[in-house]
Amino acid sequence: MSTEAPLGERLRVIPLGGAGEIGKNMYVIELGGEMVVIDAGVAFPTADQLGVDLVLPDFSYVAERRDRLAALFLTHGHEDHIGAVPYFLRAAGPTRVYGTRFVLGLLRSKLEEHRLLDAAELIEIEPGVPRAIGPFGGEFVHLTHSMPGCVAVALRSPVGTVVHTGDFKFDHTPIDGRRTNLPALARLGDGGVHVLLADSTNAEVPGVPASERSVGQELRRILATAPGRVVVTTFASHIHRMQQVLQASYADGRVVALVGRSLNRNFGIARGLGEIEVPDATVVRPRDLDEHPADEQVVLATGSQGEPLSALSRMARGEHPLVHIRAGDTVVYSSRTVPGNELAVNDTINRLVRAGARVITQETNPAIHVSGHGTAENLQVMLQLLRPRFFVPIHGEPRHQRAHADLARGVGLDPDDIFVLDNGDVLEVGPRDAEVAGRVEAGITYVDGLGVGDVVEGVLRDRRHLSADGLVLVVATVSAQSGEPVGEAEIVTRGFGADDPELIEATRVEVERSLAASAAERVTEVGLLQHQLHDAVAALLYRRTRQRPMVLPVVVEV
Amino acid sequence: MSTEAPLGERLRVIPLGGAGEIGKNMYVIELGGEMVVIDAGVAFPTADQLGVDLVLPDFSYVAERRDRLAALFLTHGHEDHIGAVPYFLRAAGPTRVYGTRFVLGLLRSKLEEHRLLDAAELIEIEPGVPRAIGPFGGEFVHLTHSMPGCVAVALRSPVGTVVHTGDFKFDHTPIDGRRTNLPALARLGDGGVHVLLADSTNAEVPGVPASERSVGQELRRILATAPGRVVVTTFASHIHRMQQVLQASYADGRVVALVGRSLNRNFGIARGLGEIEVPDATVVRPRDLDEHPADEQVVLATGSQGEPLSALSRMARGEHPLVHIRAGDTVVYSSRTVPGNELAVNDTINRLVRAGARVITQETNPAIHVSGHGTAENLQVMLQLLRPRFFVPIHGEPRHQRAHADLARGVGLDPDDIFVLDNGDVLEVGPRDAEVAGRVEAGITYVDGLGVGDVVEGVLRDRRHLSADGLVLVVATVSAQSGEPVGEAEIVTRGFGADDPELIEATRVEVERSLAASAAERVTEVGLLQHQLHDAVAALLYRRTRQRPMVLPVVVEV
Repeated sequence: MSTEAPLGERLRVIPLGGAGEIGKNMYVIELGGEMVVIDAGVAFPTADQLGVDLVLPDFSYVAERRDRLAALFLTHGHEDHIGAVPYFLRAAGPTRVYGTRFVLGLLRSKLEEHRLLDAAELIEIEPGVPRAIGPFGGEFVHLTHSMPGCVAVALRSPVGTVVHTGDFKFDHTPIDGRRTNLPALARLGDGGVHVLLADSTNAEVPGVPASERSVGQELRRILATAPGRVVVTTFASHIHRMQQVLQASYADGRVVALVGRSLNRNFGIARGLGEIEVPDATVVRPRDLDEHPADEQVVLATGSQGEPLSALSRMARGEHPLVHIRAGDTVVYSSRTVPGNELAVNDTINRLVRAGARVITQETNPAIHVSGHGTAENLQVMLQLLRPRFFVPIHGEPRHQRAHADLARGVGLDPDDIFVLDNGDVLEVGPRDAEVAGRVEAGITYVDGLGVGDVVEGVLRDRRHLSADGLVLVVATVSAQSGEPVGEAEIVTRGFGADDPELIEATRVEVERSLAASAAERVTEVGLLQHQLHDAVAALLYRRTRQRPMVLPVVVEV
Repeated sequence: MSTEAPLGERLRVIPLGGAGEIGKNMYVIELGGEMVVIDAGVAFPTADQLGVDLVLPDFSYVAERRDRLAALFLTHGHEDHIGAVPYFLRAAGPTRVYGTRFVLGLLRSKLEEHRLLDAAELIEIEPGVPRAIGPFGGEFVHLTHSMPGCVAVALRSPVGTVVHTGDFKFDHTPIDGRRTNLPALARLGDGGVHVLLADSTNAEVPGVPASERSVGQELRRILATAPGRVVVTTFASHIHRMQQVLQASYADGRVVALVGRSLNRNFGIARGLGEIEVPDATVVRPRDLDEHPADEQVVLATGSQGEPLSALSRMARGEHPLVHIRAGDTVVYSSRTVPGNELAVNDTINRLVRAGARVITQETNPAIHVSGHGTAENLQVMLQLLRPRFFVPIHGEPRHQRAHADLARGVGLDPDDIFVLDNGDVLEVGPRDAEVAGRVEAGITYVDGLGVGDVVEGVLRDRRHLSADGLVLVVATVSAQSGEPVGEAEIVTRGFGADDPELIEATRVEVERSLAASAAERVTEVGLLQHQLHDAVAALLYRRTRQRPMVLPVVVEV
């Protein structure tokens, strides 16, 4: 840097999501009282996050300092990078949002759905064209990944330049012909990169990744030999894969019907922005498919993760109104199964097989999908092009971030200059030094229905308890004066398996015994009565069933 | 067969578990009013089988015909083949149980735990030594798999011979030196196999499987280069893997501590039966580990599937009383992750990495585990040695059974002679023909606590409802005469996120409105009042929160 940093001026790098865990990416870069946020992603709930719809980063740190928020920068358009933007705008107020044309196209559609178009000033950036991002001089380098419009961002400051790679791999034969701009990355390195934040997702995978183009070749081979209709499922955001399915279908003389809401929305956006090219006659409506012979049909469908309401899952269950799986169909999973979705995907595949389809997956045919993330060799090339002074591996899980740190040591970085951070860690960076200088509030915010942040750990704990052994409700009426029971207690169970009449009667007897004992001790306070009832009933039920349903005692005084 | 079948005499082959699904294997073979059951396994619950402890086959078909039950035959000792035996014995009464010495050793320990040793007559069979099994002439052929004492069973009858392979692969260099008896299989084929039931688990995997011995070589390499202590986790039933860890440790001059209840139990049984050989000095108690330098220690631990209470999971959380993960430790997953366990395993690995361990898994080091199931080429060799007249692919999922059927067609079987069955299907087999002739009761029995069969689909549905959005309980007291509310309604929520005071108050107002409306219409019947309350409150809550908690209205009349 030519400008000297003022004495004591320091950068702060704070991950709020995506460090020490997978998904919901969000990184804060601060300089002189201003902050730029990079990405605002969501994660999807895991099996133990019961009833949760979406998982957001806890961005209260930013929301509480909204006067200092200069910009939100989006590296690319995947949900784990832009999915939280509507929630972020509601919390942080109107914000300048920077991204490439394609990212903003996806975001615009999302904000329209949330009726939030007014809350953001969308500002298009272009690779190779510098533009100020808040207090920083911004530069943007085009990278290959599994969608168009992906960039790395360099934020120049008097302290030094911070580079965030976003998601990337080095695909030397991308299907849109736009390769990663390696010389631009090298020039960034020549100018001096002070802090690098780089994608760790595939750090454990050795070697170099296959090109997206190789999947197209495999698709053509499958289409050419499939005896009937071919159903292809992939990620709805995978514009390049969509393009390849369309191209291979056209080459094989097949028409394509797109089935699934998100797929159709993304197809429309991508085609409108010129990111997908396909002859009009190749795309048909699902209802018109059967005007063509089976071996001239392709269905491109959502559902690669076994999502129960997706197009493919409904086809597999025989519940799709327009597409019915038939013997002779070939179903191609041009995708990987995201961890946690294995059973749902397995279930869908088994239903497809029972319906007579042949199913091709990455397990049996590795060439049918490639990852959009660079493997070890790509990551080492990135490190050598940029030659950062300080390095923060991001994205992926802790194991991947550690593996990325190991790769960095392998190409000569000093272990003391590598920081594997957790969400909320504050990395303070001066011109010559960097250190983890503290922590800010960070974590998880759950979305459930209209509620954002209502579902907290205690609520999930109750849901887990209820889900494990169900509920036993005891309603007892007692005299306000004596505490003596009035009439019979009512026992209601839900989700409790052992509720045979004999056990219910034994529970009622136990309730009477407990109330009589309390009355004998002259206990009339409702809270205390309920407490004693709870313990008596829970103990009886555990003794008799070895189950621990949630016991809810309600004492009504009359 | 030399004996002619009486006119009209037929065999019946009925899968009660393990057909059309994975796990809880159980197959019924009937002849002339007698039945032999092959295997009685359990499956472990999936994420949507909330609160369930174990999944059994519904064997009421056998229990209701217990007078006709001649024998239970066990092909080998894995839980998905013997785990349901205690429940089976309780339902079917005292039974002759046949198995190899090692299987009976494992079963004896299981029956002792369940205090059921008296309910079974355990009869040891030996490969190569014929013995009657109920109405059949039984022959047993030793096979390699991932534990000792595995056999295929041939049941000879006037109608023809039924062969059930159990689980197998062809390991030509097994670590106990006992290869699959290929000539004996060929002789069975020479004598004529009428019906073959064969393991389909790895039918989708091409080629031949690696030998168990190759894992030992990889373990030695890892132990030789690991800078400190090595923790190895594998399946507790994998006696051969245990033997290899012990051997490799001895060869590297390390001591081994076994940590985990099931591992220690199986080690004890296997060592007692001579299936594991290890010098006394090699095995140490966990508390004595630190008498040896770190690089002379090995810990063999349960927990390869991320089970929360297992030894390795507790180490990863820093909660194990005896073993603490330290920087410099190497943790080796000598296992595959069973579908459905990915997130739990990932979580454990990330904790181990954070604690400073290097973690080696099959993902990054494929040589560290091999499957015990034969891949496509093995299955085709089995089909060619036995040359069955009729073929039923079993084990694995429908996709694997279909793939196995395809392999069978590939080696010349007539598609009309291949039967991919579902649980409950009755395959009737005569001397010259076979057909699916009907269905019997079959399905799933859940074990929850002490309850076997209490948890039914309706209970699980309630648990799913409760787990998704929690519970809102409304307790209202009304006058028995007028139906008018007496006092304020009580609202209790559990696992419901949106329970802020304002919404609770709105709910109370809605309860009053509903009760007043009912009173105006002179509704006093409690059931009807509760019904109206339910609908009013559920509608309000959905409108305000887009959540659907379970609403439980209780009306108390005074």
